[in-house]
Amino acid sequence: MTEINKDLQNERKKCTFNIEELTEFVYGGPEKTQERRERENFLLSKKELFEGVPEEYLSHKDKYEQCIRKSVIIFQLFRQMQNEGKMTVSNYRDVVTQILGSTLVRDGSPLGLHYIMFMPTIITQANDEQQAKWLPRSWNCNIIGSYAQTELGHGTFVRGLETTATYDPSTKEFDLHSPSLTSYKWWPGGLGHTANYCILIAQLYTKGKCHGIHPFIVQLRDEETHVPLPGIKIGDIGAKLGLNEVNNGFLGFDHVRIPRDQMLMKHAQVLEDGTYIKSLNSKLNYGPMVFTRVVIVFDVANYLCKAATIATRYSAVRRQSQKKPGEQECQILDYLTQQHKIFPAIATCHALRIAGKKLWDTFNTINEQLIGGNLERLPELHALACCLKAVSTSDAAQCVERCRLACGGHGYMLSSNLPLTYGLVTAACTYEGENTVMLLQTARFLAKTWQQVDSIKLTPTVEYLKYSANEGCRKWENSVEQIIEAFKIISMKKIQSCVKDMENRVSSGTSFEDAWNMSSVQLVSAAEAHCRVIILSTFNEEIKEKSKNASPELAVVLNQLLELYTVYWALEKSGDLMQYTCISKEDLEGLRWWYEDILIQLRPNAVGVVDAFDIRDDFLHSTLGAYDGRVYERLMEEALKCPLNADVVNVSFHKYLKPFLRGKL
Amino acid sequence: MTEINKDLQNERKKCTFNIEELTEFVYGGPEKTQERRERENFLLSKKELFEGVPEEYLSHKDKYEQCIRKSVIIFQLFRQMQNEGKMTVSNYRDVVTQILGSTLVRDGSPLGLHYIMFMPTIITQANDEQQAKWLPRSWNCNIIGSYAQTELGHGTFVRGLETTATYDPSTKEFDLHSPSLTSYKWWPGGLGHTANYCILIAQLYTKGKCHGIHPFIVQLRDEETHVPLPGIKIGDIGAKLGLNEVNNGFLGFDHVRIPRDQMLMKHAQVLEDGTYIKSLNSKLNYGPMVFTRVVIVFDVANYLCKAATIATRYSAVRRQSQKKPGEQECQILDYLTQQHKIFPAIATCHALRIAGKKLWDTFNTINEQLIGGNLERLPELHALACCLKAVSTSDAAQCVERCRLACGGHGYMLSSNLPLTYGLVTAACTYEGENTVMLLQTARFLAKTWQQVDSIKLTPTVEYLKYSANEGCRKWENSVEQIIEAFKIISMKKIQSCVKDMENRVSSGTSFEDAWNMSSVQLVSAAEAHCRVIILSTFNEEIKEKSKNASPELAVVLNQLLELYTVYWALEKSGDLMQYTCISKEDLEGLRWWYEDILIQLRPNAVGVVDAFDIRDDFLHSTLGAYDGRVYERLMEEALKCPLNADVVNVSFHKYLKPFLRGKL
Repeated sequence: MTEINKDLQNERKKCTFNIEELTEFVYGGPEKTQERRERENFLLSKKELFEGVPEEYLSHKDKYEQCIRKSVIIFQLFRQMQNEGKMTVSNYRDVVTQILGSTLVRDGSPLGLHYIMFMPTIITQANDEQQAKWLPRSWNCNIIGSYAQTELGHGTFVRGLETTATYDPSTKEFDLHSPSLTSYKWWPGGLGHTANYCILIAQLYTKGKCHGIHPFIVQLRDEETHVPLPGIKIGDIGAKLGLNEVNNGFLGFDHVRIPRDQMLMKHAQVLEDGTYIKSLNSKLNYGPMVFTRVVIVFDVANYLCKAATIATRYSAVRRQSQKKPGEQECQILDYLTQQHKIFPAIATCHALRIAGKKLWDTFNTINEQLIGGNLERLPELHALACCLKAVSTSDAAQCVERCRLACGGHGYMLSSNLPLTYGLVTAACTYEGENTVMLLQTARFLAKTWQQVDSIKLTPTVEYLKYSANEGCRKWENSVEQIIEAFKIISMKKIQSCVKDMENRVSSGTSFEDAWNMSSVQLVSAAEAHCRVIILSTFNEEIKEKSKNASPELAVVLNQLLELYTVYWALEKSGDLMQYTCISKEDLEGLRWWYEDILIQLRPNAVGVVDAFDIRDDFLHSTLGAYDGRVYERLMEEALKCPLNADVVNVSFHKYLKPFLRGKL
Repeated sequence: MTEINKDLQNERKKCTFNIEELTEFVYGGPEKTQERRERENFLLSKKELFEGVPEEYLSHKDKYEQCIRKSVIIFQLFRQMQNEGKMTVSNYRDVVTQILGSTLVRDGSPLGLHYIMFMPTIITQANDEQQAKWLPRSWNCNIIGSYAQTELGHGTFVRGLETTATYDPSTKEFDLHSPSLTSYKWWPGGLGHTANYCILIAQLYTKGKCHGIHPFIVQLRDEETHVPLPGIKIGDIGAKLGLNEVNNGFLGFDHVRIPRDQMLMKHAQVLEDGTYIKSLNSKLNYGPMVFTRVVIVFDVANYLCKAATIATRYSAVRRQSQKKPGEQECQILDYLTQQHKIFPAIATCHALRIAGKKLWDTFNTINEQLIGGNLERLPELHALACCLKAVSTSDAAQCVERCRLACGGHGYMLSSNLPLTYGLVTAACTYEGENTVMLLQTARFLAKTWQQVDSIKLTPTVEYLKYSANEGCRKWENSVEQIIEAFKIISMKKIQSCVKDMENRVSSGTSFEDAWNMSSVQLVSAAEAHCRVIILSTFNEEIKEKSKNASPELAVVLNQLLELYTVYWALEKSGDLMQYTCISKEDLEGLRWWYEDILIQLRPNAVGVVDAFDIRDDFLHSTLGAYDGRVYERLMEEALKCPLNADVVNVSFHKYLKPFLRGKL
């Protein structure tokens, strides 16, 4: 055990609450905390995972090869867990995403989509016969699948996909074809060189008619040689901001034929003669999409925990500027401006995790109703999942970036792990539904709800629309509850004003689509306000509830986090507050004082609060954020691993630089 | 010539103004535009610059080697320009930064600091004898220098540097030493493996006394073999978010000796016997620092022009979602939410460039006064440079990132050039003065000024503080001028309230330093508001002035850009407007309508406006942003350059993947 940095020792000494108690609060009790640690111990015992040159120094190609080496070790673990009964078809997605999220394969894995999309699609979309055929081989990883939907020219607007699957009754086959460059599949993880199968989403044609997009299972490469099958053009799409180990691929078909039974036929079907039988209820497929969004919310919250841990510990170790001449330089964590950059990020970790849990619970409740045939709350679930996905990814990305910038120059080093973390989180702003599109989906639900506010029974997450509409301008007082009420009023008034504007435009001859577009900037901001209501209320309820059984010391800290988060957002949206509520200029000034006061209250516990996220060094992977605070030693150690440093004189000196210096070039 | 994308052709057809006229407005007239194009033609004629595997696929080491190969070609060009008299000691920094900024070496150059910091320091800090010795060899690039100031443990607080230079009168040498790990130099560009000399900033000790930091010229490597000299530990600091071709290095000394005449002695001196002679006026060294900040403002504005060009052209080419079933999908540039992401970035390009010019002019005016011995306006210049550096880099970084996100998944591809552009711009938020520290410097000047507002004659950029203090709450009307006035009031009221808070705290016993810290979040926001006053006023004046001689068609567009920028910032700061000015809720609503209206007005000219930035494809370096709009073709072409795609089956399949699939691992 190396010696712990003195400043970190002091921080931990002055912590006023029990860190383990907060850890258990975060991970849902002592059992789950224990389970998580055991899984981590298992991974940590695999020494091969920690060998090799750090990824950041490798070429794109070497990164891929190293990642495959490490990925199969991790996926062996999954197999072992299956054999021991610790991972089953019903819990595996949880386990897999948690393990990949705690991320030993730092920049994603080419095998991830196999578990996260390929298998789930077989489970939800294949009929029994098809499941019997494909599931065991997938489950045992005898085949590796990807999920090919997005195309070079088509993303969010799924109906615009161009790839065709045309049924030929004479051979009982589908003819798969990419009619244009823009129809090439583009982005699927693991598709480039790793997967030998994929789920393909294509426009189904039979008897000369298009029936829209449907899923197919397609073999891409020979199982023995891994050579792409005839008619298949496939490869890696190239380097990206992040996710460079995911082997995202492109895929084109030149009239490739697959048998009829490789269209997944649990819902819609194509009979031997080419007759198309429609799905009875296409909305039942909605579950997996919501599930993925729940996973994203948890995922970005986890990444943010890392960033907050790194920035907080580094700020306790880093010293800069003397307050008075001759004094030791200050810990930068003592600067209010630094607290203002980092502490809201810490509070956001909790807020997003709790919101994710809320979404998960709502999903499960509504999913049961769905299975029972009750589709009433489906639009609400959709609206909730959309806005939470958008706001959580966008907030997390901004918080991670603030944490990175708070670490100054060293935050710019890849060895801090902050740039990579940002790369992963910001990606989530775009994938699985681009954020602006997501917020507009929520806005559409809100607008519809508003138009019927007096005539229908409102579902729980939008009940406040009715109630707030009847609120007058009562006396304001600065409190968490009042701020939540304020966001309800903001959300309601914004949606009200958008609906009014659109109605006016439509009645003066504008088409609904154009009126919608004209109001869309405001609609996005209405949906965001609605989402703030959800996140703030859920956070408030959870903290109030959990504080009852917590130790008084922890309850104080939990309440500070709640207040910090709430007041931070009130100040961020002060323009909305002043425009739509009856807050006064003096109240707003009071909020600023309150905010600064909580920063100072939280300061002594800052390191303890991030310690409670309980992220081990091997998973945190950061020179700046390790538990022992050996920041400078680690920075130097990582620099020395740079292969450029293996030679004191680089070959380019003799080849290019020396002739240039001598004027001989 | 390849065919231009149809949508881009249409966009250019409907452009209402003369694009070349706007280009000349941007680059300061037809002559400068012409000069710039000639320089670019020269670079474009060097075919070797465009050979080799794209940098994003290379390892850290290969990137460095390829960059040295390309850099010497570019620096040969500088030599040639010197020989032809096109580049002289008085203009070279301009030329170099422009060329490096237009950036053929996409991710920085290890030779850049030689021109940007090493030579300027010799010119401004070496005495005549020293200049005679070192300048010709530097000018001819017979030696390559770096500039070593920042240390592993010390950045912004320069007085805290640890490296020592101790004078030994017995040998007439300085003993250079790194007393700790944190004293290692860390970050200097080109220091790792490229430079053989550096300017070293170290604490000067003579006769047992420390005299603070001074500059020394130090040889690092043997000129013949490039092997580091004895006692010197040197290498690359490792991979970063960006700037990975800059070869940032670390450097430690183990009692390395240099002769006395290698301390740069234009100002302070150490005599042979060790007597220290103080500099007469240390403030005269201030010029280069301001110059560097001017360069940064122009630099980030240039990068933003690239990002805006890429996002705008891509949004004209990309089509997504049908407004009505059966219709062709829309250009995403038609969505108001997309315009809201991109158009403010376009306007910001102009605002920042004009602000940079203002800073440059002020610098020159004040510099002449300085040379004449008049130091009166120095604090003002410092305050101006600090806040403009901070706000321009931070705004540019945010705008670049919005542009990237506006390009969806494809913006995440390195081949879009958006991630790299972000990496370069966000770096500027930290280097040459961390932004929060910069804003606090400006705030310090504002606070001091405010405390004397009634007793001194205010310098031009802060004159408004006095005037605004006497403003009552007159009737608001939505106009550019009114919004500028509003920011003046906001700035004034914020600084007023900070000063009052600090005075209250101090009079109740808090130390000034602690009171300052307690107010620092507000002080930062006061400095930002002040900077908005500067940028908005300068933008307004310039557009009003230049519109007089512009064609009416261009004048309309220029005015739209000004309005867009001004109203955008009014809405962004609506909370401040409502708290500190007499704007009403209805006025604010009116601003929103105005804003949306300008977006729509600007829409038809969007592509023309970015075309006018006149950035050629070879410098734009983007699959998404090229002039011809062949977005999808270029994405695929770049993907195919990925070395991973050279083999249809990667070696890792046989080595790791196949055994795993067979369950034999």
